[in-house]
Amino acid sequence: MLRRALVGKPIHNERAAGTVLSKGAALPVFASDALSSVAYAPDEIVLTLALAGSAAILLSPWVGLAVLAVLAVIITAYRQNVRAYPSGGADFEIASKNLGRPAGAAVGAALMVDYTLVVAVSMAAAAQYLAAAVPWLVGHQTVVAVTGIALVGLLNLRGLKFMGRASSVPTYAFVGVVLILVLVGFVQNVTGTLQRAPSADYDVVPAAGMDGGLMGLAGAMLVLRAFSSGAVALTGVETITHSVPFFRKPKALNAARTLAVLGALSAVLLLGVLYLTRRTGAVVVMDPARQLLIDGRAPEPDFYQVPILGQIAQAVAGADSVWFVILVLVTVGVLFMAANTAYSGFPVLASRLASAALLPRQLQSRGDRFAFTNGIILLSVVAAVFTIVFGANVNGLIQLYVVGAFFAFTLTQAGMVRHWARVRRTSTSQSPHRQIAGRWAVAVIALIACAAVFVVVLVTKFAQGAWLTIVAIALITVLMRAIGHHYRSVDTELEVHQNSGVRALPSRVHSIIVVTSVRKPVVHALTYARASRPSSLEAVVVDTDRARTEQIVKQWEALEIPVPVTVLASPYRDTVGPVVAHIRGIRRKSPRDLVIVYLPEYVVGRGWERFLHNQAIRPLRMRLHYERGVMIASVPWHLESVRELRLTENNE
Amino acid sequence: MLRRALVGKPIHNERAAGTVLSKGAALPVFASDALSSVAYAPDEIVLTLALAGSAAILLSPWVGLAVLAVLAVIITAYRQNVRAYPSGGADFEIASKNLGRPAGAAVGAALMVDYTLVVAVSMAAAAQYLAAAVPWLVGHQTVVAVTGIALVGLLNLRGLKFMGRASSVPTYAFVGVVLILVLVGFVQNVTGTLQRAPSADYDVVPAAGMDGGLMGLAGAMLVLRAFSSGAVALTGVETITHSVPFFRKPKALNAARTLAVLGALSAVLLLGVLYLTRRTGAVVVMDPARQLLIDGRAPEPDFYQVPILGQIAQAVAGADSVWFVILVLVTVGVLFMAANTAYSGFPVLASRLASAALLPRQLQSRGDRFAFTNGIILLSVVAAVFTIVFGANVNGLIQLYVVGAFFAFTLTQAGMVRHWARVRRTSTSQSPHRQIAGRWAVAVIALIACAAVFVVVLVTKFAQGAWLTIVAIALITVLMRAIGHHYRSVDTELEVHQNSGVRALPSRVHSIIVVTSVRKPVVHALTYARASRPSSLEAVVVDTDRARTEQIVKQWEALEIPVPVTVLASPYRDTVGPVVAHIRGIRRKSPRDLVIVYLPEYVVGRGWERFLHNQAIRPLRMRLHYERGVMIASVPWHLESVRELRLTENNE
Repeated sequence: MLRRALVGKPIHNERAAGTVLSKGAALPVFASDALSSVAYAPDEIVLTLALAGSAAILLSPWVGLAVLAVLAVIITAYRQNVRAYPSGGADFEIASKNLGRPAGAAVGAALMVDYTLVVAVSMAAAAQYLAAAVPWLVGHQTVVAVTGIALVGLLNLRGLKFMGRASSVPTYAFVGVVLILVLVGFVQNVTGTLQRAPSADYDVVPAAGMDGGLMGLAGAMLVLRAFSSGAVALTGVETITHSVPFFRKPKALNAARTLAVLGALSAVLLLGVLYLTRRTGAVVVMDPARQLLIDGRAPEPDFYQVPILGQIAQAVAGADSVWFVILVLVTVGVLFMAANTAYSGFPVLASRLASAALLPRQLQSRGDRFAFTNGIILLSVVAAVFTIVFGANVNGLIQLYVVGAFFAFTLTQAGMVRHWARVRRTSTSQSPHRQIAGRWAVAVIALIACAAVFVVVLVTKFAQGAWLTIVAIALITVLMRAIGHHYRSVDTELEVHQNSGVRALPSRVHSIIVVTSVRKPVVHALTYARASRPSSLEAVVVDTDRARTEQIVKQWEALEIPVPVTVLASPYRDTVGPVVAHIRGIRRKSPRDLVIVYLPEYVVGRGWERFLHNQAIRPLRMRLHYERGVMIASVPWHLESVRELRLTENNE
Repeated sequence: MLRRALVGKPIHNERAAGTVLSKGAALPVFASDALSSVAYAPDEIVLTLALAGSAAILLSPWVGLAVLAVLAVIITAYRQNVRAYPSGGADFEIASKNLGRPAGAAVGAALMVDYTLVVAVSMAAAAQYLAAAVPWLVGHQTVVAVTGIALVGLLNLRGLKFMGRASSVPTYAFVGVVLILVLVGFVQNVTGTLQRAPSADYDVVPAAGMDGGLMGLAGAMLVLRAFSSGAVALTGVETITHSVPFFRKPKALNAARTLAVLGALSAVLLLGVLYLTRRTGAVVVMDPARQLLIDGRAPEPDFYQVPILGQIAQAVAGADSVWFVILVLVTVGVLFMAANTAYSGFPVLASRLASAALLPRQLQSRGDRFAFTNGIILLSVVAAVFTIVFGANVNGLIQLYVVGAFFAFTLTQAGMVRHWARVRRTSTSQSPHRQIAGRWAVAVIALIACAAVFVVVLVTKFAQGAWLTIVAIALITVLMRAIGHHYRSVDTELEVHQNSGVRALPSRVHSIIVVTSVRKPVVHALTYARASRPSSLEAVVVDTDRARTEQIVKQWEALEIPVPVTVLASPYRDTVGPVVAHIRGIRRKSPRDLVIVYLPEYVVGRGWERFLHNQAIRPLRMRLHYERGVMIASVPWHLESVRELRLTENNE
C-alpha cells in the first residue's frame, strides 16, 4: 500500500516506448547538471584564488576562460563519441570495447562515484542558496540537503516521464534569469550604474605563505587549483551521453546537437558571471572567520556568506530586491534538476554494468515504473551519507568531485583514439578516410586535454580529498571485477550441454517429515507428502527432550496414521545434526535416490508473530540446502491472522 | 568454527545431571550478587546523605541498620518460599499460581529488568574500582564496563560448570579481605591507631535547600532516599531462589541454608564497612566538582573519587599499600561474579517464562552447552546498552535498580500470604496447623516490609530514573501478555482432533517449475520434479523481457525435454504476480488438488556471493507461502564454491 502510494501505479510495457524526450525537453533534464554548476563553479574559483588575497581574485575570468577552452574540446569530442556509440553505455562501452574489460570497469566505477557526488554537491549547494534567502535555515544545511536527496529520490521512484515535463521549467527559468542578470549587469557597467557587491569592501587576509599574491611556485599551484575547482563546470557532459536512449529519433544526432547548445550556454553563463564578479568586486572565501576583515574586524558569529551568483543579483538589482529571491528559487530549482539528472543517468549506467555482469543482476531489472528502483535507492543512500559526513559543505565535497569524471574522460578518450585508429585501418574508400582522420585528431587532442586536466586535478586536490575518490573507484573496480569473475565462472559451470539434456531420474524417492509437535500443520504436511506417493515415507522426531518425544510418539500412534515414526537420538540436544546424519544414512545406502524433507511452516499475518514461530525449523532448512540429493518441501500452514489479512486484501 | 572456539564442545545429556553445585560452591556463585553490593551500597548511602552536608553522613550506620532489619525479614520469608516452591521458578511461579497469570507476567518482567541492571551496575562499579587503581583508565569506564559484560557473556556461553569452579575464589577472597579489613580497623580503632581517610578533611558543600542538614521534611525525605539507595544490598536474594535446581539434593533445604549464611555475611560486612566509614571520616559525593572543597578550593579537573571500600583500605593499611591493590582486585572479582550470577539466573527465568508461553519458544531451549544461548545474548546486549547510555555511572544506574526487585518481592509475598492462607484452610491435622499459621504470619510481615520499601523506593527514586524501570516493566508485561495470548489461541487453533486424524488426500498433484534461465540448476530441479511423478508438470516462464523469453523457449525446445512450457505475460514486468495468478487459475479449476512449485535455488559457499543469486526467486517464495493449497519445493544447486567448502569441512 505504502509502496503504491509512493511510487505510483505500474506502467504498462506498451507505454514504455513513449518515455522519450524531444530536444527541447531533453536539454533541461540532462543539461541541468552542467548548467547548474554556474551556481557554484565561480565561487570555487574565487575562494581558491582568495587564498592569495583580494588582488588574486581579479584573475578569475582568465581561469574561467581556461575552463571554457577545455569545455570546447570535450564537447567537440563527445559529439563524435555519442554518434559512434549511441547505445547509452557511452563511456563504459567505449572503454570496454577498445581498452578491455578492466578499463571498462574502472570507467564504470568512476562514473558511479561521480554521479553520487553530483547529487551530494547539488543538494549541498541548493541548501547554501536556501540558507542565504531564509536566515533561520543557517546551520541546518545538512538537514535541508538530505531532505532534498530524499525528495528527488522519491520523485524518481515515480518515474522519469513525470520529471521530464516538470523539469523544463526550473532549468529554462534559471538560464533565463541568469542571462537577464548578466545582460542588465553589462548595460549597467557600460552606463556606469553598476553597484558594488556587498562584500566588495571586505578585506581578504591571505593564507599563510601567500602574502606575495600569485608570485612563484605556490602562486602557480594556486592558479592550477582554482582551475581544478572551476573544472566542475566541465562535468555533466557525460550525463547526456548516458541518456541517448531517452532522446527522440534520430537519437544520437539529437543528443549531439543538445551537447552543442549546452556548451554554448555554459560558456555564456560562466564567463558572464565571472566578468560581473570582477566588476562588482564580489568576494567569497573558504573560512570567513579567519580570512575576512569587515571594517577591520573579524565578522560576527552569525555572518553568512552569500554565494557569488546571489551577490551579483544583489549588486545588479539591489540587496533586498525580489530578483534576489527569484534567483535563489530558480537556482535551487536547477540544482534539484541536476541531482535529478544523476538519477536518470546512474541507474542506466548501473543496469548497463549489471548486464555486463559487473554488478549484481538485480540492478539490471527495471522496477515496475520504468525506474530502476534498486539503483535509485543505492544512489540516494550513498549521496546522503556523503552529505552528512561533509556537513553539506560544498567546498569540501567539490574536492572529491571532478577527479572521477576526468579519470573517466581520459580513459574514454584513450578508447576513442584506438577506435578511430582501428576504423581508419579497416576503412577502404578515400573520402571518409580523411573525415575519420579528422575525428581521430579530435580524439587525440581531447585525450591530451583530459589527461592534462586529470593530472592537474589529481595533484592539486589529492590531499584535499580526491584520494578518497581514487580509493573508492579502486575498491569498486576490484569489487566489480570479482563479481564479473564469479558470474563468468558460474556461467561456464552451469551451461547445459546437449548431451546433459535429459538426465536419468532418481530411481526412488524417500520422504521424511520432521515432526516437532502433533498439530494441524504436521497433519497437513503429511497429507501433502502422501499425495506425492513417495517410495517410502517416515516421520522423524529429534529427541531433545525425553518427555516431549514420548508425548509426540503417543499422540502420533493415537492418530493411527499409517506412517512409521523414527526417533533420532540427540544427546547434545542439537535439532539439526541428527536429521542430517539420518539423511546421509539413507543416501549412503542408495546414492541415486532422492530424499525429500517436508517441513511444516507456520505463516503468520502480523510481522511480530514471525518471531514466535519456525525458530526451530529455520536453521534446519538452511543446513539442508547444503546437503546433496535433498529437496526441501515447505508446507505452509496459514494461521487465522493470515486469513484475516487475505480477507482485507480481497475486499480492496 | 568460531562458534566452537568461543563456546566449547557440547556436553552430553548423560553429564547434564552433574551440573549441580554443593553449598560451598553454590554460595560464591549465587550469593556474589548480594555480597558484592558491599562494594557500592555504602557509597550510595553516604553520597545521598552528603547532599545535606558532612554532619549528615554520621547517620549512615543507622541507615545501614534499617536496611539490615528489612534484610532479616526478607531472608526469613524467602527461606520459607524456597521450600514451598523449590522448582526454580520461585517468584514467578508463586505470583502466577496464587495471584494469576497477569501478576506472574509482571513479576517475570520486573525480574528480567532487574537482572539486566545487576549486570550493568556490577560492571560499572567494577570499572570504577579499576579506575581507582589504574589512573589511565579514568574516563574510559564505559569501555571497561562493556568489555566486562562481553567477557562474562562469553564465559557463560561456555557453560555454568566452568564458572562454578572458578567462581568460589573471588567471592571467598572478597569476603575474606573485607572481613580482615573490618577486623583490623576495629582493633586499630580500639587501640587508637586508626588513620583518617584521605577524604576526611574535605569540606562538603550541602546541596541547594539542604543547608539545614537533616531537619524538616526535606531532611526526612533525604534519609528515606539514602535508605532506598542502601536497599541495593537487599537485592540478589532472589537469585538464589531462581537457582534452586543447580543445588545438590536436598535442593530446597540447601538453598534455604545458603540464604541464611548469605544474610549473616551481608550484615557483618555492611555494618562493619559503615562503622569504619564513620570512624575514618571517609566521604564520597555525587558531583565532586560542585560539592567538594579541598583546602577551600574546588578539586582539580583530574580529581578521581575513590569508592568508600577503597578509602577504608587506604586508611587501615596505608594509601599506597599492597592491600589497596588486593582489595581492588578481589572487589572487581566479586563484581564480575555478581554479573555472572545474573547470567545464571536470567536464562533460567527466561526459559521458565517461555515454558509458560510468555516469551518466544526459542528462549525455552537450552543451547548445546547447558547454557541458554539466546537468553545470554539478550542479557548482554541490553545490559551493554544501559551501561553505554548511562556512561557507566553507578549512581545513575542505581536509580533504576531496586524498584523492580521490590515490585517483584511485594507481589511474591502477596502470593505467599494467599498460599499459606489456602494451605491453612485445606490442612486438617492440628500440629502443622500452628506451624502454618506461623509461616503465614512471617509472609504477612514480609509483605508489609516489602510493600513499605517498594513505596519508599518508588517515591524517592521515581523522578531520578525509576520511572524508566516502571515503564520497561509495564511494556514487557504487555508484550508477554500478547505473546501468551497468541500462543494460546494458536494452540487451540492447531489442536488435532481424533476425527481430523487422517485427512482425505488431494486427488491430483500439479507441478510447476519456474524457469528463469535454461541452466543446470533448472535441469536438475526438473529431474527431481519428474521423479515425484506428478499428475501434470509444466515449466513456466514469466515474460518480462521478450528477447530473453524467446531465447529460453528456444533453448528448452532444443533440449527436447518432454515438459510443456507456458509463457506467462507480464506487461508490468512483475515476476511474482503472473505466477500467483496462474496457480490460482489451476486451483479454481480443481480446488482439491495440490500445486507444487519447484524453485531451483543457487547455494553458494562464500557469504558475499549470496547477493549475486536468487534475488528473483526470494520474493516469489515469500509470496507463495501465502497461497492456499501450494507447496514450495526448493531444489538446491551447489556451486563449485560449496563443494570446496564441503571438502574443507570433511578434512577436519
